[in-house]
Amino acid sequence: MREGELYDRDLPRCAANHVPLSPVTFLDRSAAVWPERTALVYGRRRTSWRALRHRCRALASALRGRGIGRGGTVAALAANTPELFELHFAVPLSGGVLAALNTRLDAATIAWMLEHCEAQILFVDREFAAIAADAVARLGRGIAVIDIDDPACLHRRAAIGECDYEALVAEGDASEALPPLEDEWDAIALNYTSGTTGEPKGVVYHHRGAYLNAVSNALDWQLTRDCVYLWTLPMFHCNGWCFAWTIAAVGGMAVCLRQVRTHAIVEAIAREGVTHLCGAPTVLTMIDAAGPEVLASLKTGVSVMVAAAPPPPSVIEAIERHGWTVTHVYGLTESYGPVMINEWQAEWNGRDAEARTALKARQGVRGHMLEDVMVADPRTLQPMPADSSSVGELFLRGNNVMKGYLRQAEATEAAFRGGWLHTGDLAVRHPDGYVEIRDRAKDIIISGGENIATIEIENALHRHPSVQGAAVVARPDPLWGETPCAFVELRPGESADANALIAYCRTVLARFKVPRHVIFGPLPRSSTGKVLKYVLRETAREDAEGRSGLGPADSDGETAFDDKHDLAEIRHPPIARQF
Amino acid sequence: MREGELYDRDLPRCAANHVPLSPVTFLDRSAAVWPERTALVYGRRRTSWRALRHRCRALASALRGRGIGRGGTVAALAANTPELFELHFAVPLSGGVLAALNTRLDAATIAWMLEHCEAQILFVDREFAAIAADAVARLGRGIAVIDIDDPACLHRRAAIGECDYEALVAEGDASEALPPLEDEWDAIALNYTSGTTGEPKGVVYHHRGAYLNAVSNALDWQLTRDCVYLWTLPMFHCNGWCFAWTIAAVGGMAVCLRQVRTHAIVEAIAREGVTHLCGAPTVLTMIDAAGPEVLASLKTGVSVMVAAAPPPPSVIEAIERHGWTVTHVYGLTESYGPVMINEWQAEWNGRDAEARTALKARQGVRGHMLEDVMVADPRTLQPMPADSSSVGELFLRGNNVMKGYLRQAEATEAAFRGGWLHTGDLAVRHPDGYVEIRDRAKDIIISGGENIATIEIENALHRHPSVQGAAVVARPDPLWGETPCAFVELRPGESADANALIAYCRTVLARFKVPRHVIFGPLPRSSTGKVLKYVLRETAREDAEGRSGLGPADSDGETAFDDKHDLAEIRHPPIARQF
Repeated sequence: MREGELYDRDLPRCAANHVPLSPVTFLDRSAAVWPERTALVYGRRRTSWRALRHRCRALASALRGRGIGRGGTVAALAANTPELFELHFAVPLSGGVLAALNTRLDAATIAWMLEHCEAQILFVDREFAAIAADAVARLGRGIAVIDIDDPACLHRRAAIGECDYEALVAEGDASEALPPLEDEWDAIALNYTSGTTGEPKGVVYHHRGAYLNAVSNALDWQLTRDCVYLWTLPMFHCNGWCFAWTIAAVGGMAVCLRQVRTHAIVEAIAREGVTHLCGAPTVLTMIDAAGPEVLASLKTGVSVMVAAAPPPPSVIEAIERHGWTVTHVYGLTESYGPVMINEWQAEWNGRDAEARTALKARQGVRGHMLEDVMVADPRTLQPMPADSSSVGELFLRGNNVMKGYLRQAEATEAAFRGGWLHTGDLAVRHPDGYVEIRDRAKDIIISGGENIATIEIENALHRHPSVQGAAVVARPDPLWGETPCAFVELRPGESADANALIAYCRTVLARFKVPRHVIFGPLPRSSTGKVLKYVLRETAREDAEGRSGLGPADSDGETAFDDKHDLAEIRHPPIARQF
Repeated sequence: MREGELYDRDLPRCAANHVPLSPVTFLDRSAAVWPERTALVYGRRRTSWRALRHRCRALASALRGRGIGRGGTVAALAANTPELFELHFAVPLSGGVLAALNTRLDAATIAWMLEHCEAQILFVDREFAAIAADAVARLGRGIAVIDIDDPACLHRRAAIGECDYEALVAEGDASEALPPLEDEWDAIALNYTSGTTGEPKGVVYHHRGAYLNAVSNALDWQLTRDCVYLWTLPMFHCNGWCFAWTIAAVGGMAVCLRQVRTHAIVEAIAREGVTHLCGAPTVLTMIDAAGPEVLASLKTGVSVMVAAAPPPPSVIEAIERHGWTVTHVYGLTESYGPVMINEWQAEWNGRDAEARTALKARQGVRGHMLEDVMVADPRTLQPMPADSSSVGELFLRGNNVMKGYLRQAEATEAAFRGGWLHTGDLAVRHPDGYVEIRDRAKDIIISGGENIATIEIENALHRHPSVQGAAVVARPDPLWGETPCAFVELRPGESADANALIAYCRTVLARFKVPRHVIFGPLPRSSTGKVLKYVLRETAREDAEGRSGLGPADSDGETAFDDKHDLAEIRHPPIARQF
């Protein structure tokens, strides 16, 4: 008998024992089990799970009425309002694929994306109506536009759509039988990477991955039906790390927030009893800005998941003092959002503050449903030793890794070469197995043949009491090839100068890693709080070119900084370009 | 373009983005993330997650060395000790299928099962060596027998195996590369239903279902890495409802228990800080028997999941008074254990004790990963109205429904007819969607053309202060066809007689539902605490035959019970036959 044949015989899949995994089914369960509990809050608007399911099914029916079927793209240029939350269920229910676009993109890019994904319908919040109209005009073909008309929008432009969101919902029949999902490998969403260079890439998610990543979030963060999740993370970023589906999976409550601002965040936390929120470190900084009295006045601490960069230690400390918990996570658009987590070991609580900060800065271990993580040589895929110092590329593997890049077979193949997702991030593995990102492959500074991880310099700067934010990039240098150039945001009221910061860095960094140049001013950030290093690199390059006539003033990097810091730049404000 | 083609193009599965779901991968994660934390406790024996993984991989390697590969069956006749826990990982890691056999079976049945599943290896705890030797002798073919030699076993028989469990572990190489799982639909375990009539049926589980059900348990019960799970449920019953895999998924701790007895349970809870345990209602009764002082002395309350029958209200009350939580769940061997859960609505806490008891007796709603539940006409599969009174058969559908019955294609087909698992349980659906089992299809009593749900009578009897346990079956009756016959266990020290119980039932039940006969004594139970109604039915039948000469003393059921109860039987002890 063929190996295993006994269990292969007469035991086929059927409708009773095999149902394609899809996160939209969580909506059915929560509507059945917690029909009257509030699913979604937006200002005074409260929607129960039963009503939410009804609305999503009606909208799905209306989308089908307008031609959306399996694999049809529905794009949205929307704020973090209930409409975008609902689209996370309504579009897949219709068979379609949701493309939630970054609202800070320019019209040309939006038009390019709409063309690239063959979008059939575009939902537009009226705040973004002008840019959407421009994009549609550039598109050069007809596309159905639906307005999202949010009374809370302060900058409402004229409506441009053929119909309003609520009218579309009213058009649908919530009792219509929707086509069942046939294959869990079908696409559910499309997320364009912001793409620091070149064309954006369309990252395709499938139902299986979205289902598993939604559940993985719940396990990673121990979410229960009692969680109250605040939307400080844009839903257009990796579908809000899949948290719309996660909240439906556990039957919790989601609180929408149009403006991510200190007051609005704190007010929502106090009013709704928020227990969890996500975001980039900037969100933490915003919350910290509320001040200790306000934070102390909140009834309970909030659990915060922070990604994109290690959260600044001083901010973590200030916030955790009020009973909050900050969890550092790591992921990519290609991995449905965070899939690695800095799982906190109880014994670390006994370590001193500096050690705890260093431990928390690590990206950590695989989340519950990521299958494997590896730090390896990018050419041979041979794992690097877990010795805290051997830098390799970080590789991921699992069901919450994208289906691939839309219409970019070569890029997909390259991203998956050898059966692993190539993250492009350089990392070390510590002896305890925790991974720590050293840098983006392209962010590494090579100075006099030495590799310098910019993040190490940034971490050092972040520990300085006057520094609010810091980013380091390579600055072309005729002698050394590249030298580190630091861009620094000071805390309000602080006035440290470049000399002081460089002197400080000398006390905590190897000399060759100490920045030669310091430029002060607000850091340019993406809509998700990620510092746009390519902007900084350009500034540093222009700065170097403008100064090229000067020639290298210090022929010896080691001594040049010993007693004078004449190359340190002090300029306000240095960075005009905002993304 | 074909519908959906855009997203079907150049986006194939590969090793980076598609990994077959298998619960054994949870062992890898917990070993990586919590290497030093205790995974498994048995008396003084403590095994860390790292060590557990090492042992399981070594054992898998040894199993492969002895010929186990994909689809090879490894049977076990074992107690709830670490060895059986480890086999839940080692056997699937080797590619094999674990068949954990009920240790209360007779040798002939065990031999039949070993033959039926073509078992290649049999693990035997020395307590069961004699019966295993008998079974192997009946098998009439060679089979490798491995002894599990537990020093804590009080009734150790002579070893019968060719080698000891620990020697086998030592034989393996933990670093051996094990074959990766190719298909999540592959079998992972085999569980024989106890089968009240006819041949046992071999229920096949697959990796996908075991993975999802393990996670569903964690979501249903909000388990975290801090859970301490006590093994009061036999692992041979639906693989312990998949909890070995669940504990690995969340990185909690499992406490093994050889003897499920009041003292041992309470001692383990106190010693290890147990937070969760599962079982049949008998486990609750055992715990209740510890007495209020002992329960009050425990530091924290324990969450208990109870299935098989609605837990007796008085016991729930006594236990919940000490801060414990009892959750009523429902499932079948065919559904990997419990897949429905009595999700407790916060507002129910405001209801009176009787209403709360009635609410808790309901089997509830689908668990997080069961896809659908239906109460429907068994012939037409048309759903019954959710009106609390229309009785239909309960149907389930989801990925945690078995692969099918081994070598019983017809039975599999019948069980899945129409794309649903036919549970054979009769239920009503309440207007709030909660399901309540009325009876097993074959347990229903039809008296004078009226259907009587035995569970309703049982619930009434359970509410009587003197009653510890009650089971009701049909008793053949020449006039009415059948009448209800109640088998009752009294609380220690109580002495209620049949007349008193019947009078009591008259106050809470419709007259035609009141038992005509009451028989006192301990109820015969399966190893999992399920009352063996077929034994009771036989006793009731014999009783009726023995009394047939008497003829019907009451020609009018309605009046016969008005003033006299002369047909009520009082006998001690009535039931000699134990399963």
